[in-house]
This record gives sequence, C-alpha cells and structure tokens, in this order.
Amino acid sequence: MTITNQASAQTVLDRCDLLASFSEEAGCITRRFASPPMHEVHAVITSWMRDIGMTVDIDAMGNLIGRYAGSQRNAKTLLLGSHLDTVRNAGKYDGLLGVMVALASLENLHAQGRPLPFSIELIGFADEEGLRYQSVYIGSKAITGTFDPRDLTLRDADGISFADAIRSFGGNPDPAVLTTPRWRREELLGYCEVHIEQGPVLEARDLPLAVVSGIVGQQRILFSLQGEPGHAGTLPMDLRHDALCAAAEFVLAAEKMGRDVSGLVATVGQLQVQPGAANVVPSLINLSLDIRHEDDRLRNASASQLCQQARQICEKRGISLTWQPVQNSQTVPCSPRLVQRWQQALTQETYPVFTLPSGAGHDTVIMSALTDVAMLFVRCRAGISHNPAESVQREDVAAAITVLDRYLQITAKEQE
Amino acid sequence: MTITNQASAQTVLDRCDLLASFSEEAGCITRRFASPPMHEVHAVITSWMRDIGMTVDIDAMGNLIGRYAGSQRNAKTLLLGSHLDTVRNAGKYDGLLGVMVALASLENLHAQGRPLPFSIELIGFADEEGLRYQSVYIGSKAITGTFDPRDLTLRDADGISFADAIRSFGGNPDPAVLTTPRWRREELLGYCEVHIEQGPVLEARDLPLAVVSGIVGQQRILFSLQGEPGHAGTLPMDLRHDALCAAAEFVLAAEKMGRDVSGLVATVGQLQVQPGAANVVPSLINLSLDIRHEDDRLRNASASQLCQQARQICEKRGISLTWQPVQNSQTVPCSPRLVQRWQQALTQETYPVFTLPSGAGHDTVIMSALTDVAMLFVRCRAGISHNPAESVQREDVAAAITVLDRYLQITAKEQE
Repeated sequence: MTITNQASAQTVLDRCDLLASFSEEAGCITRRFASPPMHEVHAVITSWMRDIGMTVDIDAMGNLIGRYAGSQRNAKTLLLGSHLDTVRNAGKYDGLLGVMVALASLENLHAQGRPLPFSIELIGFADEEGLRYQSVYIGSKAITGTFDPRDLTLRDADGISFADAIRSFGGNPDPAVLTTPRWRREELLGYCEVHIEQGPVLEARDLPLAVVSGIVGQQRILFSLQGEPGHAGTLPMDLRHDALCAAAEFVLAAEKMGRDVSGLVATVGQLQVQPGAANVVPSLINLSLDIRHEDDRLRNASASQLCQQARQICEKRGISLTWQPVQNSQTVPCSPRLVQRWQQALTQETYPVFTLPSGAGHDTVIMSALTDVAMLFVRCRAGISHNPAESVQREDVAAAITVLDRYLQITAKEQE
Repeated sequence: MTITNQASAQTVLDRCDLLASFSEEAGCITRRFASPPMHEVHAVITSWMRDIGMTVDIDAMGNLIGRYAGSQRNAKTLLLGSHLDTVRNAGKYDGLLGVMVALASLENLHAQGRPLPFSIELIGFADEEGLRYQSVYIGSKAITGTFDPRDLTLRDADGISFADAIRSFGGNPDPAVLTTPRWRREELLGYCEVHIEQGPVLEARDLPLAVVSGIVGQQRILFSLQGEPGHAGTLPMDLRHDALCAAAEFVLAAEKMGRDVSGLVATVGQLQVQPGAANVVPSLINLSLDIRHEDDRLRNASASQLCQQARQICEKRGISLTWQPVQNSQTVPCSPRLVQRWQQALTQETYPVFTLPSGAGHDTVIMSALTDVAMLFVRCRAGISHNPAESVQREDVAAAITVLDRYLQITAKEQE
C-alpha cells in the first residue's frame, strides 16, 4: 500500500516536539493541570486551530475545545480529543498525539475545501493523569458534568486548593458549572480518541494500528500474610511459618491464573517483607494484586478464585491471611457501531483489522457517560509509556491520520 | 527425677531481672559495649563474685573475668562464660543467663567447701552482639588475641571512636594488648558456655537442655534479578519478564532445598521490589539468601545448587541474574571430648541426652581459636530471642546448674 499523509505525520511529530518544550521542569516533560506551560500549549494549539477557521473555547475547567463547523446548521457534533496534561517526566505522545492527529485530519478537510455535513469539536482535556490533585479524568469529568465538587477542596503539593488553581488559570470553580454537561446526548455523534497503545501488543504483531474494543475492568486487592518471625539459623524448616514462602506461592498462583485465562492480566506489583533482615524468617508480607479482564464476570470470578487460593496456601502453612478490596471498576465497552466504523476505515485503507481491549484507562471511560465512544491505538516502541523513551514511528502516525480521514468520510456518508 | 538447685535457679532469675534494669534506654534493655550501665553490671557481678572469694579483673577491652582458684597451684584453668552486652530492646537471658548459671555453680562449689583441683575463670564478655560498632565478638576476640586493631577507628552512631569508647570505659586501646591472648593454650582445660537455645527445637521435643555439637557454618548471598517493567494493564502475560515471579520461584526452591536436606536451613529474609507500584510489573528484585548447615561441604553444595537453580529460573524467564557472596563462615565443631563430658553429665543427672548444632553464632566460635570449646543450650519459650519476650523456666535453669555442677565434678575426676 502507498503510505499517504507522510508530510502531515511529520508535522504531527514536529508539533509534539514543540509542545514537549512547554514543561514545569527543565530537561523533562511535566505539565500538570492548570500549570503555566498549559497556557502556552493552549496558545499554540489555538493558533493552529484558528488557521483552519476553527473557533476556540477554553471552558471553566480549562479544557481546550476547538469547533470545526459542518456544512449543515443544527447538524450533530462528533467529538474528537485526548488530554494535554502529562505525568511527571513524561513522554511526548501520551495524550498529545491524539489531539495532533485529529488536528491533522481537520487540516486535511480544510485543505480539500469540502466541509462535512456535521460539526467536529476537538477537545484537549485539562487533566487526565491526575498528577496535581491525585484525582484522575478531571477534564472529561467536568465536560460531561460528572465532576465531584468535593474535589475542589483538594490541595496540591504546594498547598494550593483545586478551586484556586482553576481560578488562577482563568477558569471558574463554580460547582454548578462543573457539574453541567457541555452537550446533550442527542447533539452528539460520539467521541473518538486516538492514543498510543502504551503496551507492546501491536509491536509484537507488527501492526501500526488497533481498534479498541473497550477499556477493561480492573480490581485491586491488598493482601496481608501474617506468619511468625524466627532466627534464620535456629528455626528448623519444619517449624517455620514463613510469610514470604506463602506469598511466593501466591505470586505464582496469580501468574498462572493470568496465563491460563485468555485476556486476563494479574500482577503483584507491591510486596513488602517484614522484618526484612537477612537472618530473620519473614513474619509479615503485604502485597497488592491488580487483575484486569474485559469480561467483568470472568474477572470477578478469577479474583475470587485467587482469594480462595491465597486462603488455601495460608491455611496449609499456618499463616493468617486478610485481604481488602481497594478498587473495582467495570469494563467500559466501546460502541459496537463506532468500532465497526473504525474497522471499515482500516479495511478501506487496506490496513489489517486488529481489535484489542485497552488495559489502561482513558478519558474515553468518562466520555462514555455522555455519548458513544471508540478509540484507535497507535503502535509505540516496546510498549513504553509514562517515560521519556515513549516513541512512535512516522509511518504509524501517517496511518492513523489516513484512517481517521476515512473514518470521518464514512461518518459523513452515514449522515447523508 | 528430683529437681535440685531450685533455689539457685530462682536466684539466677532474680539476678537476670536485676541486671535487666541496667539499660541505656528506659523501659527496655539495651546495653551496648562500654556503656554506662555496663559499669553497673560489672559492679554488681563483681560483688557477687567476691562474696565467694573470687578475684575479679576487668581487662583492656572491658571483659569481666572472675577467678575461682583451685586447690592445686599451677593447675590448669577451665573457662566458663558468656556475654554481658545486649541487642537493642533485648530479652533478659541472651548472654546473661550463661554467666549467672556458671556463677550459681561456683556458689555451690563454695558452699560445699570442696575446691576443685583446677581453677575456673568466669568471663562476662564485653561485646558479642556488635550493636555499638557493628563488629561482633569484640570481647572474645580481644581475650583470644584475634581482635583486628583496624576496628579501633570505627565510630558509633554518636561519632565516638572505638578507641575512645574503650578509654572512657577505663580500658586500654593499645593494639599490642588487644591482640595478645590472655592465656596460653596449654594453660587451659577448655571453654564452656551455657546459653539459651534461641530456637524452638527443645520446646518442640519437650527437653530442658541440649549439648551443642558445633556452631554451624553459614553463608549469605545477595541476588539481583533484573526483568523488564511494564504496565499491569497493557502488558500481556506472555510478553512479561516479571522479576518478582522469578524471585517467587527462587524463594520456593530455597525452601524446598531446606526441607529436602536434613539439617539445612535456607532463608530468604530480605526481598525488595522495584518499582513497587501496584500497577507496574516488577522489574528489579534484590533478595538475600542465608543458608546454614553443620556440614560445610553439604552447605556449599546446597548453596551452589541454589545458585544454579536461580540461573535456570531466570534464563527460562528472560531475567538477568547476578549474585554476590557476602559472608561465608565455616562450621566450628565443639570438642568431641567436651561434648562427651556434657553428655555424661546429663546421663548421670538422669536428663535425656540430646545433641544439636547451634544455628546462631556465639563467643564459643572465637574461643575455639584458643582452646577446646563446648556449649549447653537451655530451652527458651517459643524459640524467641533478641526480644523482650525471651523467657526461660526455673526448672530448666535448675537443670542447667545441676548439669554444670556435674560437669565440673567429672572434669575434676579426669584431672585426678
């Protein structure tokens, strides 16, 4: 196939480079909610949007919304977007790439001089990562009216309240405003987000793009295993109640469950050993289990089964066990209609159709409260994200622009 | 059997209670090398020793040595003893009990008015635990002339040098003095130490006492397992190189080795997970292996085998592995002649004869450089030591005094 949109893709990469320079920390990318460099990002993107006749608004929460008007008055609106904030010491593409790819498609539309029958609004969300206030999806929550006003009293590391941060950025911390959706459901054609995969599956399959089937449900459980301490030299093996050995069995049980159940991921990411001396038999282990699957029922069943296995392992070893669920979010499926439209776009542009669930969360989760949602993933190098080593290929970005162009055309045809 | 020495045993317990009150920290027992409460302990024990005609010396390192003269001039000397220092927040019996039991036996001798043909010197070692200067066995090293003078430049947590600590306690930090043995080998009949077991074996076997066959050799190895980090949601199980899962396999391999090889103990006491976030696949694990067995060859072979298993586990999982031996001490066997004498003493006093190796280190290890050594273990509750919950039964202390009394009589007979 001929790769089109190579120049546009280069522009996208150049823009991501430029926007990366607007950071709170020298030498790395850190751009929190309502921070000074967010103003610079807004100013630059606004100028690009206005160059193609878009009208630009910054809402009460600091979301940037550019409107590309359609040919028909009172037509519905398709939402595109992603987030403009970053984690600490971030890469260039998480969030930004989705906004820039969408802008490139709008520039293509503008260059062709053939407006679509519907309007498009491109959103640069104010905060998805939650770095400043440890509360995620702030931007999309405000725009969908699902923001919790109690968050307004949160304080950042410098003691600045959420409300003051909004105010000093030029927004409006009025709870009534922040809990009112920007659109009515019937005004919208859906929300589509282009995003780097943040995982290694596309690279492993040698594919540039994937349609996202949904954002997988996730639960997190903290386990505490209490055994008995003892001297590593004087306590014979057969008299031990070693909490770490029990934990080791559980770590492997979780791994086996993840391997045995297709699509399941199970991770023990935290494990603390007490007392933690080389010559003392471990007496207390605290560990975390993170378990995710697109099928909520299957995920819940797997988690329950692992809790039972933990109980059996500990009973056998004379270890006392407690656990505490700390998070449990359901799977958010993408709209089958929009998923199919992305698949059509891929097929028409002669890209292989590949569909996978997103193991990470996105603004799409929140937008699903307001409208149909869908996502397109772009391959990233080695699955690395939230890291300066984030990397995408120009060809893959070109593919994303091309497929989004096609997606808009298919949507237009369906509106006729 | 009739339990004798009940009153003596009560005196021993009362004395341990009293000596526990001489501490650097209110509300708990902490008595470091050359600390002010060590002066108080010396003063009280000295008065008890002088009450039965012993001569008392405090050597250049601060070891307390009381001499109970025998009936024959120029007779050899039997050494008894244990240490007077403690760990932080210690129990009452680790070290102290051995000195008090020996003193009780000497008081019995004195009361009977029948001096032995040989002299006895009872040593209260200045430092076995190494709490103040992180260097263990200081007292016994000085008395055997094996002290390393480079330690004199060590500084404690307050910046006080080892040499200054000796000086301010009233000792003499002269390297020549501290590296000269107090006795010549041919002057000695051996060194015997009574000590709490610090393990649960006697309790599990319902026995008051055990003869120690030797102090087991020990090695410590630090392992580092380097995998690859990844997002717990987006990295499929089959693409993971999870360092914690590899470490879990190793922890269980070490446990299995300990269970399969009779007399072996293998412990992973430290295990640190990086990055240690609930939603990140662990990429780096550092862990410690402590492995001990009375048979050095078997211990070395087991350790090598575990290193090979670690290598196999990591190769299979695409994890890179390094390890570093940080300690390797050989087994110090007790003198077969003295072990047999303790066994005779147990038999003659109608106690069951039980012999076991010591998994923990003792001054006995250092004293073996100078003379034949042996130890007698006293049951302690639940194997707990280095903890305020250390506990012994009066009946067991009485048994220890009775058996030591008998040991001295047997030694006397052999000297005739």
